[in-house]
Amino acid sequence: MTEKPTVISEHRCFGGTVGFYRHASEACGGDMRFGVFVPPQARERKVPVLYYLAGLTCTEDTFLIKGGAQRMAAELGIMLVAPDTSPRGAGYPGEDASWDFGVGAGFYLDATQAPWSARYRMGTYVTKELPALIAAHFPARTDREGIFGHSMGGHGALVSALRNPGRYRSVSAFAPIAAPMRVPWGQKAFRGYLGEDTAQWREYDASELLRASKVRLPPLLVDQGTADKFLQEQLKPELLREACEAVGQPLELRIHEGYDHGYYFVSTFMEDHLRHHAAALNA
Amino acid sequence: MTEKPTVISEHRCFGGTVGFYRHASEACGGDMRFGVFVPPQARERKVPVLYYLAGLTCTEDTFLIKGGAQRMAAELGIMLVAPDTSPRGAGYPGEDASWDFGVGAGFYLDATQAPWSARYRMGTYVTKELPALIAAHFPARTDREGIFGHSMGGHGALVSALRNPGRYRSVSAFAPIAAPMRVPWGQKAFRGYLGEDTAQWREYDASELLRASKVRLPPLLVDQGTADKFLQEQLKPELLREACEAVGQPLELRIHEGYDHGYYFVSTFMEDHLRHHAAALNA
Repeated sequence: MTEKPTVISEHRCFGGTVGFYRHASEACGGDMRFGVFVPPQARERKVPVLYYLAGLTCTEDTFLIKGGAQRMAAELGIMLVAPDTSPRGAGYPGEDASWDFGVGAGFYLDATQAPWSARYRMGTYVTKELPALIAAHFPARTDREGIFGHSMGGHGALVSALRNPGRYRSVSAFAPIAAPMRVPWGQKAFRGYLGEDTAQWREYDASELLRASKVRLPPLLVDQGTADKFLQEQLKPELLREACEAVGQPLELRIHEGYDHGYYFVSTFMEDHLRHHAAALNA
Repeated sequence: MTEKPTVISEHRCFGGTVGFYRHASEACGGDMRFGVFVPPQARERKVPVLYYLAGLTCTEDTFLIKGGAQRMAAELGIMLVAPDTSPRGAGYPGEDASWDFGVGAGFYLDATQAPWSARYRMGTYVTKELPALIAAHFPARTDREGIFGHSMGGHGALVSALRNPGRYRSVSAFAPIAAPMRVPWGQKAFRGYLGEDTAQWREYDASELLRASKVRLPPLLVDQGTADKFLQEQLKPELLREACEAVGQPLELRIHEGYDHGYYFVSTFMEDHLRHHAAALNA
Protein backbone atom coordinates (compact mmCIF):
# COMPACT_ATOMS: atom_id res chain seq x y z
CA MET A 1 0.00 0.00 0.00
CA THR A 2 1.49 3.31 -1.06
CA GLU A 3 1.53 6.26 1.29
CA LYS A 4 -1.55 8.46 1.09
CA PRO A 5 -0.93 11.56 -1.03
CA THR A 6 -1.10 14.95 0.65
CA VAL A 7 -4.04 17.13 -0.32
CA ILE A 8 -2.97 20.50 -1.73
CA SER A 9 -6.52 21.61 -2.50
CA GLU A 10 -9.91 20.14 -3.36
CA HIS A 11 -12.78 21.84 -5.16
CA ARG A 12 -16.33 20.75 -5.91
CA CYS A 13 -16.85 20.75 -9.68
CA PHE A 14 -19.75 19.39 -11.78
CA GLY A 15 -20.98 17.37 -8.81
CA GLY A 16 -17.60 15.69 -8.35
CA THR A 17 -14.27 16.90 -7.00
CA VAL A 18 -11.17 18.41 -8.60
CA GLY A 19 -8.21 17.79 -6.30
CA PHE A 20 -4.51 18.48 -6.37
CA TYR A 21 -2.13 16.23 -4.47
CA ARG A 22 1.55 15.81 -3.62
CA HIS A 23 3.40 12.61 -2.81
CA ALA A 24 6.92 11.26 -2.47
CA SER A 25 7.63 9.51 -5.76
CA GLU A 26 9.98 6.56 -5.82
CA ALA A 27 10.36 6.59 -9.61
CA CYS A 28 11.15 10.31 -9.69
CA GLY A 29 13.16 10.43 -6.46
CA GLY A 30 11.25 13.30 -4.91
CA ASP A 31 7.91 15.02 -4.53
CA MET A 32 5.54 14.91 -7.47
CA ARG A 33 2.19 16.63 -7.91
CA PHE A 34 -0.88 15.46 -9.78
CA GLY A 35 -4.48 16.50 -10.31
CA VAL A 36 -7.58 14.29 -10.22
CA PHE A 37 -11.22 14.78 -11.13
CA VAL A 38 -13.41 12.27 -9.32
CA PRO A 39 -16.86 12.18 -10.95
CA PRO A 40 -20.05 12.02 -8.90
CA GLN A 41 -20.65 8.35 -9.85
CA ALA A 42 -17.63 7.41 -7.73
CA ARG A 43 -19.68 7.86 -4.56
CA GLU A 44 -21.55 4.69 -5.54
CA ARG A 45 -18.94 2.58 -7.33
CA LYS A 46 -15.42 2.48 -8.68
CA VAL A 47 -15.09 4.23 -12.03
CA PRO A 48 -12.81 3.96 -15.08
CA VAL A 49 -9.71 6.17 -15.13
CA LEU A 50 -8.51 8.34 -17.99
CA TYR A 51 -4.93 9.66 -17.79
CA TYR A 52 -4.11 12.97 -19.46
CA LEU A 53 -0.52 13.89 -20.23
CA ALA A 54 0.13 17.59 -20.78
CA GLY A 55 2.55 19.35 -23.08
CA LEU A 56 5.79 21.31 -22.73
CA THR A 57 5.82 23.95 -19.95
CA CYS A 58 2.53 22.69 -18.49
CA THR A 59 1.90 21.42 -14.97
CA GLU A 60 -0.57 19.13 -13.23
CA ASP A 61 -3.26 21.81 -13.25
CA THR A 62 -3.20 22.93 -16.88
CA PHE A 63 -5.66 20.33 -18.13
CA LEU A 64 -8.09 20.71 -15.24
CA ILE A 65 -8.13 24.51 -15.62
CA LYS A 66 -8.13 24.84 -19.41
CA GLY A 67 -9.30 21.54 -20.88
CA GLY A 68 -13.00 21.77 -20.12
CA ALA A 69 -13.17 17.99 -19.63
CA GLN A 70 -14.89 17.80 -16.25
CA ARG A 71 -18.39 18.39 -17.58
CA MET A 72 -18.32 15.34 -19.85
CA ALA A 73 -16.31 13.25 -17.39
CA ALA A 74 -19.03 13.91 -14.81
CA GLU A 75 -21.70 12.91 -17.30
CA LEU A 76 -19.87 9.77 -18.43
CA GLY A 77 -18.63 8.70 -14.99
CA ILE A 78 -14.92 8.78 -15.77
CA MET A 79 -12.10 9.75 -13.40
CA LEU A 80 -9.46 12.08 -14.86
CA VAL A 81 -5.84 11.95 -13.68
CA ALA A 82 -3.27 14.55 -14.75
CA PRO A 83 0.37 14.20 -13.67
CA ASP A 84 2.95 16.98 -13.82
CA THR A 85 5.18 17.12 -16.91
CA SER A 86 8.51 16.43 -15.18
CA PRO A 87 10.20 16.20 -11.82
CA ARG A 88 10.90 19.60 -10.29
CA GLY A 89 13.64 20.87 -8.04
CA ALA A 90 16.21 18.21 -8.89
CA GLY A 91 18.78 20.96 -9.15
CA TYR A 92 20.55 19.49 -12.18
CA PRO A 93 22.68 21.94 -14.17
CA GLY A 94 20.62 23.37 -17.01
CA GLU A 95 17.32 21.88 -15.87
CA ASP A 96 15.66 25.32 -16.09
CA ALA A 97 17.68 26.61 -19.03
CA SER A 98 15.17 25.85 -21.78
CA TRP A 99 11.44 25.31 -22.03
CA ASP A 100 11.74 22.18 -24.16
CA PHE A 101 14.15 20.16 -22.00
CA GLY A 102 14.40 19.50 -18.26
CA VAL A 103 11.78 21.03 -15.99
CA GLY A 104 8.34 20.92 -17.62
CA ALA A 105 9.68 18.73 -20.43
CA GLY A 106 10.09 15.19 -19.09
CA PHE A 107 8.84 13.61 -22.34
CA TYR A 108 7.25 10.69 -20.43
CA LEU A 109 10.35 8.50 -20.74
CA ASP A 110 12.91 6.97 -18.36
CA ALA A 111 16.20 8.82 -18.84
CA THR A 112 19.34 6.71 -19.08
CA GLN A 113 21.90 9.54 -19.05
CA ALA A 114 23.31 11.07 -15.88
CA PRO A 115 22.25 13.11 -14.08
CA TRP A 116 18.74 12.85 -15.54
CA SER A 117 18.53 9.08 -15.07
CA ALA A 118 18.22 9.46 -11.30
CA ARG A 119 14.97 11.39 -11.34
CA TYR A 120 13.64 11.93 -14.86
CA ARG A 121 11.76 8.63 -14.97
CA MET A 122 8.36 9.83 -16.12
CA GLY A 123 7.79 6.68 -18.18
CA THR A 124 7.71 4.48 -15.09
CA TYR A 125 5.96 7.20 -13.14
CA VAL A 126 2.94 7.69 -15.40
CA THR A 127 2.45 4.03 -16.37
CA LYS A 128 3.27 2.27 -13.09
CA GLU A 129 3.77 4.33 -9.94
CA LEU A 130 0.96 6.84 -10.39
CA PRO A 131 -1.63 4.21 -11.46
CA ALA A 132 -0.74 2.15 -8.38
CA LEU A 133 -1.18 5.22 -6.21
CA ILE A 134 -4.52 6.02 -7.84
CA ALA A 135 -5.69 2.43 -7.39
CA ALA A 136 -4.77 2.52 -3.70
CA HIS A 137 -6.25 5.86 -2.76
CA PHE A 138 -9.04 6.72 -5.23
CA PRO A 139 -12.23 4.86 -6.29
CA ALA A 140 -10.63 3.69 -9.55
CA ARG A 141 -11.27 0.61 -11.67
CA THR A 142 -7.78 -0.60 -12.55
CA ASP A 143 -9.15 -2.83 -15.29
CA ARG A 144 -10.54 0.18 -17.14
CA GLU A 145 -7.81 2.66 -18.02
CA GLY A 146 -7.48 5.02 -20.96
CA ILE A 147 -4.79 7.55 -21.83
CA PHE A 148 -4.58 10.72 -23.88
CA GLY A 149 -2.57 13.89 -24.06
CA HIS A 150 -1.55 17.03 -25.91
CA SER A 151 1.63 17.73 -27.90
CA MET A 152 4.49 16.24 -25.82
CA GLY A 153 1.71 14.53 -23.85
CA GLY A 154 0.15 13.18 -27.04
CA HIS A 155 3.51 11.57 -27.73
CA GLY A 156 3.50 10.33 -24.15
CA ALA A 157 0.04 8.80 -24.46
CA LEU A 158 0.83 6.97 -27.71
CA VAL A 159 4.19 5.69 -26.44
CA SER A 160 2.85 4.67 -23.03
CA ALA A 161 0.18 2.60 -24.75
CA LEU A 162 2.56 1.04 -27.26
CA ARG A 163 5.09 0.12 -24.59
CA ASN A 164 2.41 -1.46 -22.37
CA PRO A 165 0.42 -3.74 -24.67
CA GLY A 166 -3.13 -4.48 -23.58
CA ARG A 167 -2.91 -2.01 -20.76
CA TYR A 168 -5.04 0.87 -22.04
CA ARG A 169 -8.51 0.30 -23.42
CA SER A 170 -8.59 3.63 -25.21
CA VAL A 171 -5.98 6.03 -26.59
CA SER A 172 -6.17 9.46 -28.20
CA ALA A 173 -4.11 12.60 -28.73
CA PHE A 174 -4.36 16.29 -29.53
CA ALA A 175 -1.59 17.55 -31.83
CA PRO A 176 0.91 14.91 -30.68
CA ILE A 177 4.64 14.95 -31.38
CA ALA A 178 3.97 11.99 -33.62
CA ALA A 179 7.50 11.11 -34.70
CA PRO A 180 9.88 12.60 -32.13
CA MET A 181 13.07 11.11 -33.62
CA ARG A 182 12.49 13.17 -36.74
CA VAL A 183 11.89 16.57 -35.15
CA PRO A 184 13.96 19.08 -33.15
CA TRP A 185 11.97 18.82 -29.91
CA GLY A 186 12.29 15.05 -29.82
CA GLN A 187 15.90 14.95 -30.95
CA LYS A 188 16.96 17.42 -28.27
CA ALA A 189 15.08 15.51 -25.56
CA PHE A 190 16.20 12.06 -26.67
CA ARG A 191 19.85 13.12 -26.98
CA GLY A 192 19.78 14.64 -23.49
CA TYR A 193 17.82 11.93 -21.71
CA LEU A 194 18.81 8.83 -23.72
CA GLY A 195 22.22 9.65 -25.22
CA GLU A 196 23.51 9.39 -28.77
CA ASP A 197 22.43 5.81 -29.53
CA THR A 198 19.39 6.27 -31.73
CA ALA A 199 18.40 2.64 -31.20
CA GLN A 200 17.29 3.80 -27.76
CA TRP A 201 15.32 6.65 -29.29
CA ARG A 202 13.17 4.19 -31.24
CA GLU A 203 11.82 2.85 -27.96
CA TYR A 204 10.07 6.16 -27.35
CA ASP A 205 8.92 7.11 -30.85
CA ALA A 206 5.30 6.17 -31.57
CA SER A 207 5.73 5.93 -35.32
CA GLU A 208 8.84 3.74 -34.94
CA LEU A 209 7.27 1.56 -32.25
CA LEU A 210 4.27 0.90 -34.44
CA ARG A 211 6.47 -0.26 -37.32
CA ALA A 212 8.82 -2.32 -35.15
CA SER A 213 6.39 -4.29 -33.03
CA LYS A 214 3.31 -6.42 -33.48
CA VAL A 215 1.47 -4.41 -30.83
CA ARG A 216 -1.80 -2.96 -32.05
CA LEU A 217 -3.66 -0.39 -30.06
CA PRO A 218 -7.38 0.23 -29.85
CA PRO A 219 -8.51 2.57 -32.66
CA LEU A 220 -6.67 5.87 -32.25
CA LEU A 221 -8.30 9.28 -32.37
CA VAL A 222 -5.93 12.13 -33.21
CA ASP A 223 -6.94 15.77 -33.74
CA GLN A 224 -4.70 18.36 -35.39
CA GLY A 225 -5.26 22.00 -36.32
CA THR A 226 -3.98 23.48 -39.57
CA ALA A 227 -2.99 26.81 -37.97
CA ASP A 228 -0.74 25.06 -35.45
CA LYS A 229 2.63 26.79 -35.75
CA PHE A 230 4.42 23.60 -34.72
CA LEU A 231 2.69 21.36 -37.25
CA GLN A 232 5.31 21.20 -39.98
CA GLU A 233 8.49 21.26 -37.95
CA GLN A 234 7.65 19.44 -34.71
CA LEU A 235 4.47 17.36 -34.95
CA LYS A 236 4.37 15.54 -38.32
CA PRO A 237 1.12 13.59 -37.94
CA GLU A 238 1.58 12.34 -41.52
CA LEU A 239 4.39 10.09 -40.28
CA LEU A 240 2.07 8.57 -37.72
CA ARG A 241 -0.56 8.07 -40.41
CA GLU A 242 1.96 6.37 -42.70
CA ALA A 243 3.09 4.07 -39.88
CA CYS A 244 -0.50 3.19 -38.99
CA GLU A 245 -1.32 2.46 -42.62
CA ALA A 246 1.83 0.35 -43.02
CA VAL A 247 0.94 -1.94 -40.11
CA GLY A 248 -2.84 -1.87 -40.13
CA GLN A 249 -3.29 0.19 -36.98
CA PRO A 250 -6.72 1.86 -37.00
CA LEU A 251 -6.37 5.65 -36.80
CA GLU A 252 -8.84 8.47 -37.17
CA LEU A 253 -6.71 11.54 -37.88
CA ARG A 254 -8.89 14.63 -38.04
CA ILE A 255 -7.49 17.83 -39.53
CA HIS A 256 -9.25 20.99 -38.34
CA GLU A 257 -9.04 24.09 -40.48
CA GLY A 258 -7.77 27.18 -38.68
CA TYR A 259 -7.20 25.71 -35.21
CA ASP A 260 -3.87 26.37 -33.49
CA HIS A 261 -1.83 24.48 -30.88
CA GLY A 262 -3.44 25.83 -27.70
CA TYR A 263 -6.24 24.92 -25.35
CA TYR A 264 -8.85 26.84 -27.35
CA PHE A 265 -8.27 24.04 -29.86
CA VAL A 266 -7.99 21.25 -27.28
CA SER A 267 -11.15 22.26 -25.41
CA THR A 268 -13.15 22.46 -28.66
CA PHE A 269 -12.66 18.75 -29.33
CA MET A 270 -12.50 17.55 -25.72
CA GLU A 271 -16.05 16.20 -25.73
CA ASP A 272 -15.29 14.03 -28.77
CA HIS A 273 -12.25 12.59 -26.99
CA LEU A 274 -14.15 11.90 -23.79
CA ARG A 275 -16.84 10.09 -25.78
CA HIS A 276 -14.17 8.12 -27.67
CA HIS A 277 -12.69 6.95 -24.38
CA ALA A 278 -16.04 6.33 -22.72
CA ALA A 279 -17.12 4.03 -25.57
CA ALA A 280 -14.27 1.69 -24.58
CA LEU A 281 -14.04 2.37 -20.85
CA ASN A 282 -17.74 2.03 -20.14
CA ALA A 283 -18.31 -0.88 -22.52
CA MET B 1 -16.29 55.68 -35.38
CA THR B 2 -13.79 54.53 -32.79
CA GLU B 3 -10.29 53.48 -33.75
CA LYS B 4 -9.96 49.81 -34.60
CA PRO B 5 -8.53 47.81 -31.70
CA THR B 6 -5.16 46.15 -32.14
CA VAL B 7 -5.20 42.35 -32.32
CA ILE B 8 -3.03 40.74 -29.64
CA SER B 9 -3.98 37.19 -30.63
CA GLU B 10 -6.86 35.29 -32.21
CA HIS B 11 -7.68 31.60 -31.83
CA ARG B 12 -10.28 29.38 -33.47
CA CYS B 13 -12.50 27.90 -30.78
CA PHE B 14 -15.77 25.93 -31.08
CA GLY B 15 -16.15 27.06 -34.66
CA GLY B 16 -15.85 30.73 -33.69
CA THR B 17 -12.94 32.91 -32.61
CA VAL B 18 -11.47 33.86 -29.25
CA GLY B 19 -9.55 37.10 -29.65
CA PHE B 20 -7.63 39.45 -27.39
CA TYR B 21 -7.38 43.11 -28.26
CA ARG B 22 -5.81 46.37 -27.08
CA HIS B 23 -7.04 49.89 -27.63
CA ALA B 24 -6.48 53.44 -26.40
CA SER B 25 -9.30 54.06 -23.94
CA GLU B 26 -10.63 57.56 -23.48
CA ALA B 27 -12.50 56.73 -20.27
CA CYS B 28 -9.45 55.08 -18.71
CA GLY B 29 -6.85 57.44 -20.14
CA GLY B 30 -4.61 54.74 -21.56
CA ASP B 31 -4.39 51.32 -23.15
CA MET B 32 -6.99 48.76 -22.14
CA ARG B 33 -7.25 45.10 -23.11
CA PHE B 34 -10.32 42.95 -23.63
CA GLY B 35 -11.22 39.50 -24.84
CA VAL B 36 -14.03 38.52 -27.22
CA PHE B 37 -15.57 35.26 -28.33
CA VAL B 38 -17.31 35.63 -31.68
CA PRO B 39 -19.59 32.64 -32.26
CA PRO B 40 -19.85 30.94 -35.66
CA GLN B 41 -23.33 32.41 -36.28
CA ALA B 42 -21.73 35.85 -36.61
CA ARG B 43 -20.49 34.96 -40.09
CA GLU B 44 -24.10 35.17 -41.24
CA ARG B 45 -25.64 37.85 -39.04
CA LYS B 46 -25.07 40.16 -36.11
CA VAL B 47 -25.43 38.38 -32.77
CA PRO B 48 -26.40 39.37 -29.20
CA VAL B 49 -23.57 40.35 -26.84
CA LEU B 50 -23.03 39.13 -23.31
CA TYR B 51 -20.56 41.07 -21.16
CA TYR B 52 -18.66 39.23 -18.44
CA LEU B 53 -16.99 41.15 -15.62
CA ALA B 54 -14.27 39.26 -13.76
CA GLY B 55 -13.25 39.35 -10.12
CA LEU B 56 -10.35 40.71 -8.09
CA THR B 57 -6.86 39.95 -9.50
CA CYS B 58 -8.29 38.67 -12.80
CA THR B 59 -7.58 39.98 -16.30
CA GLU B 60 -9.31 40.01 -19.67
CA ASP B 61 -8.37 36.39 -20.33
CA THR B 62 -9.47 34.71 -17.09
CA PHE B 63 -13.03 34.06 -18.19
CA LEU B 64 -12.14 32.86 -21.67
CA ILE B 65 -9.52 30.44 -20.29
CA LYS B 66 -11.31 29.14 -17.20
CA GLY B 67 -15.02 29.81 -17.62
CA GLY B 68 -15.86 27.13 -20.16
CA ALA B 69 -18.50 29.40 -21.72
CA GLN B 70 -17.49 29.22 -25.39
CA ARG B 71 -19.13 25.85 -26.04
CA MET B 72 -22.60 27.07 -25.10
CA ALA B 73 -22.05 30.54 -26.57
CA ALA B 74 -21.22 28.85 -29.89
CA GLU B 75 -24.35 26.73 -29.65
CA LEU B 76 -26.59 29.64 -28.67
CA GLY B 77 -25.06 32.21 -31.03
CA ILE B 78 -23.97 34.71 -28.39
CA MET B 79 -20.89 36.94 -28.46
CA LEU B 80 -18.91 37.10 -25.21
CA VAL B 81 -16.97 40.22 -24.23
CA ALA B 82 -14.59 40.28 -21.25
CA PRO B 83 -12.87 43.52 -20.23
CA ASP B 84 -9.88 43.75 -17.93
CA THR B 85 -10.58 44.43 -14.24
CA SER B 86 -8.87 47.84 -14.01
CA PRO B 87 -6.57 50.24 -15.82
CA ARG B 88 -2.93 49.16 -15.65
CA GLY B 89 0.29 51.10 -15.56
CA ALA B 90 -1.17 54.37 -14.30
CA GLY B 91 1.75 54.59 -11.90
CA TYR B 92 -0.30 55.90 -8.97
CA PRO B 93 1.27 55.46 -5.54
CA GLY B 94 0.02 52.23 -4.01
CA GLU B 95 -1.75 50.97 -7.12
CA ASP B 96 0.04 47.62 -6.82
CA ALA B 97 0.20 47.50 -3.04
CA SER B 98 -2.83 45.29 -2.46
CA TRP B 99 -4.78 42.74 -4.44
CA ASP B 100 -8.17 44.22 -3.50
CA PHE B 101 -7.57 47.86 -4.48
CA GLY B 102 -5.95 49.53 -7.49
CA VAL B 103 -4.61 47.30 -10.26
CA GLY B 104 -6.90 44.32 -10.86
CA ALA B 105 -9.53 45.82 -8.57
CA GLY B 106 -11.30 48.61 -10.43
CA PHE B 107 -14.72 47.69 -9.00
CA TYR B 108 -16.47 48.80 -12.21
CA LEU B 109 -17.09 52.34 -10.93
CA ASP B 110 -15.95 55.86 -11.86
CA ALA B 111 -13.57 57.07 -9.18
CA THR B 112 -14.04 60.61 -7.91
CA GLN B 113 -10.94 60.84 -5.73
CA ALA B 114 -7.53 61.94 -7.03
CA PRO B 115 -5.44 60.44 -8.42
CA TRP B 116 -7.79 57.53 -9.25
CA SER B 117 -10.43 59.76 -10.83
CA ALA B 118 -8.22 60.40 -13.86
CA ARG B 119 -8.06 56.79 -15.03
CA TYR B 120 -10.06 54.45 -12.80
CA ARG B 121 -13.32 54.99 -14.69
CA MET B 122 -14.36 51.40 -15.26
CA GLY B 123 -18.04 52.24 -14.87
CA THR B 124 -18.05 54.40 -17.97
CA TYR B 125 -15.64 52.04 -19.68
CA VAL B 126 -17.68 48.84 -19.39
CA THR B 127 -21.13 50.38 -19.94
CA LYS B 128 -20.34 52.99 -22.59
CA GLU B 129 -16.93 53.06 -24.23
CA LEU B 130 -16.38 49.32 -24.64
CA PRO B 131 -19.92 48.65 -25.96
CA ALA B 132 -19.46 51.44 -28.51
CA LEU B 133 -16.17 49.90 -29.58
CA ILE B 134 -17.74 46.45 -29.86
CA ALA B 135 -20.63 47.85 -31.88
CA ALA B 136 -18.23 49.56 -34.27
CA HIS B 137 -15.80 46.71 -34.85
CA PHE B 138 -17.56 43.40 -34.15
CA PRO B 139 -20.75 41.84 -35.56
CA ALA B 140 -22.78 42.77 -32.47
CA ARG B 141 -26.46 43.51 -32.04
CA THR B 142 -26.49 46.59 -29.83
CA ASP B 143 -30.18 46.11 -29.05
CA ARG B 144 -29.45 42.74 -27.45
CA GLU B 145 -27.02 43.03 -24.57
CA GLY B 146 -26.71 41.02 -21.37
CA ILE B 147 -24.25 41.27 -18.50
CA PHE B 148 -22.90 38.93 -15.86
CA GLY B 149 -19.84 38.50 -13.71
CA HIS B 150 -18.10 36.86 -10.79
CA SER B 151 -17.42 38.23 -7.30
CA MET B 152 -16.31 41.87 -7.83
CA GLY B 153 -17.60 41.37 -11.37
CA GLY B 154 -20.93 40.09 -10.08
CA HIS B 155 -21.21 43.37 -8.20
CA GLY B 156 -20.20 45.14 -11.40
CA ALA B 157 -22.86 43.37 -13.45
CA LEU B 158 -25.67 44.12 -10.99
CA VAL B 159 -24.65 47.75 -10.56
CA SER B 160 -24.09 48.36 -14.26
CA ALA B 161 -27.60 47.08 -14.96
CA LEU B 162 -29.20 49.08 -12.13
CA ARG B 163 -27.45 52.30 -13.15
CA ASN B 164 -28.49 51.88 -16.80
CA PRO B 165 -32.20 51.09 -16.72
CA GLY B 166 -33.54 49.20 -19.70
CA ARG B 167 -30.09 48.70 -21.12
CA TYR B 168 -29.44 45.01 -20.42
CA ARG B 169 -31.96 42.36 -21.36
CA SER B 170 -30.47 39.78 -19.01
CA VAL B 171 -28.40 39.91 -15.83
CA SER B 172 -26.78 37.23 -13.65
CA ALA B 173 -23.92 36.77 -11.22
CA PHE B 174 -21.68 34.15 -9.65
CA ALA B 175 -20.92 34.79 -5.98
CA PRO B 176 -21.30 38.57 -6.29
CA ILE B 177 -20.22 41.14 -3.73
CA ALA B 178 -23.90 41.75 -3.18
CA ALA B 179 -23.77 44.61 -0.69
CA PRO B 180 -20.35 46.25 -1.01
CA MET B 181 -21.04 49.10 1.47
CA ARG B 182 -21.42 46.53 4.22
CA VAL B 183 -18.24 44.50 3.63
CA PRO B 184 -14.49 45.14 3.91
CA TRP B 185 -13.70 44.73 0.18
CA GLY B 186 -16.34 47.25 -0.80
CA GLN B 187 -15.64 49.69 2.00
CA LYS B 188 -11.93 49.79 1.17
CA ALA B 189 -12.63 50.30 -2.53
CA PHE B 190 -15.37 52.88 -2.05
CA ARG B 191 -13.34 54.89 0.47
CA GLY B 192 -10.34 54.92 -1.88
CA TYR B 193 -12.17 55.60 -5.12
CA LEU B 194 -15.18 57.60 -3.91
CA GLY B 195 -14.06 59.23 -0.65
CA GLU B 196 -15.68 59.33 2.77
CA ASP B 197 -19.18 60.44 1.75
CA THR B 198 -21.20 57.24 1.99
CA ALA B 199 -24.01 58.82 -0.03
CA GLN B 200 -21.71 58.30 -3.01
CA TRP B 201 -21.16 54.68 -2.03
CA ARG B 202 -24.88 53.97 -2.37
CA GLU B 203 -24.64 54.73 -6.07
CA TYR B 204 -22.52 51.61 -6.53
CA ASP B 205 -24.13 49.17 -4.11
CA ALA B 206 -26.62 46.82 -5.77
CA SER B 207 -28.66 46.20 -2.63
CA GLU B 208 -28.89 49.92 -1.90
CA LEU B 209 -29.68 50.84 -5.51
CA LEU B 210 -32.53 48.35 -5.58
CA ARG B 211 -34.07 49.85 -2.47
CA ALA B 212 -33.54 53.46 -3.50
CA SER B 213 -34.81 53.45 -7.06
CA LYS B 214 -37.83 52.28 -8.99
CA VAL B 215 -35.62 50.47 -11.49
CA ARG B 216 -36.46 46.81 -11.85
CA LEU B 217 -34.19 44.46 -13.70
CA PRO B 218 -35.06 41.38 -15.69
CA PRO B 219 -35.26 38.32 -13.40
CA LEU B 220 -31.84 37.85 -11.77
CA LEU B 221 -30.00 34.53 -11.57
CA VAL B 222 -27.38 34.38 -8.79
CA ASP B 223 -25.35 31.29 -7.86
CA GLN B 224 -23.44 30.96 -4.60
CA GLY B 225 -21.43 28.08 -3.11
CA THR B 226 -21.60 27.21 0.58
CA ALA B 227 -17.86 26.43 0.81
CA ASP B 228 -16.94 29.88 -0.48
CA LYS B 229 -14.51 31.28 2.08
CA PHE B 230 -15.64 34.83 1.30
CA LEU B 231 -19.35 34.14 1.72
CA GLN B 232 -19.93 35.40 5.26
CA GLU B 233 -17.56 38.34 5.37
CA GLN B 234 -17.50 39.74 1.83
CA LEU B 235 -20.41 38.54 -0.30
CA LYS B 236 -23.62 38.56 1.77
CA PRO B 237 -26.14 37.40 -0.84
CA GLU B 238 -28.82 37.45 1.87
CA LEU B 239 -28.74 41.27 1.76
CA LEU B 240 -29.40 41.17 -1.96
CA ARG B 241 -32.26 38.73 -1.38
CA GLU B 242 -33.77 40.97 1.28
CA ALA B 243 -33.53 43.99 -1.00
CA CYS B 244 -35.11 42.10 -3.89
CA GLU B 245 -37.93 40.86 -1.67
CA ALA B 246 -38.51 44.36 -0.28
CA VAL B 247 -38.98 45.91 -3.70
CA GLY B 248 -40.39 43.03 -5.72
CA GLN B 249 -37.33 42.39 -7.86
CA PRO B 250 -37.43 38.81 -9.21
CA LEU B 251 -34.36 36.88 -8.07
CA GLU B 252 -33.41 33.23 -8.31
CA LEU B 253 -30.66 32.79 -5.70
CA ARG B 254 -29.28 29.26 -5.86
CA ILE B 255 -27.15 27.98 -2.99
CA HIS B 256 -24.83 25.12 -3.95
CA GLU B 257 -23.59 22.79 -1.24
CA GLY B 258 -19.81 22.42 -1.09
CA TYR B 259 -18.82 24.72 -3.95
CA ASP B 260 -16.11 27.33 -3.33
CA HIS B 261 -15.32 30.75 -4.85
CA GLY B 262 -13.22 29.65 -7.82
CA TYR B 263 -13.72 28.78 -11.46
CA TYR B 264 -14.37 25.09 -10.73
CA PHE B 265 -17.60 26.49 -9.25
CA VAL B 266 -18.18 29.10 -11.95
CA SER B 267 -17.65 26.67 -14.84
CA THR B 268 -20.03 24.12 -13.29
CA PHE B 269 -22.96 26.51 -13.57
CA MET B 270 -21.86 28.39 -16.68
CA GLU B 271 -24.24 26.54 -18.98
CA ASP B 272 -27.20 27.53 -16.80
CA HIS B 273 -26.15 31.18 -16.98
CA LEU B 274 -25.68 31.10 -20.74
CA ARG B 275 -29.15 29.59 -21.14
CA HIS B 276 -30.60 32.20 -18.77
CA HIS B 277 -29.12 34.97 -20.92
CA ALA B 278 -30.01 33.31 -24.22
CA ALA B 279 -33.65 33.05 -23.22
CA ALA B 280 -33.78 36.86 -23.13
CA LEU B 281 -31.17 37.72 -25.76
CA ASN B 282 -32.47 35.36 -28.43
CA ALA B 283 -36.15 35.97 -27.70
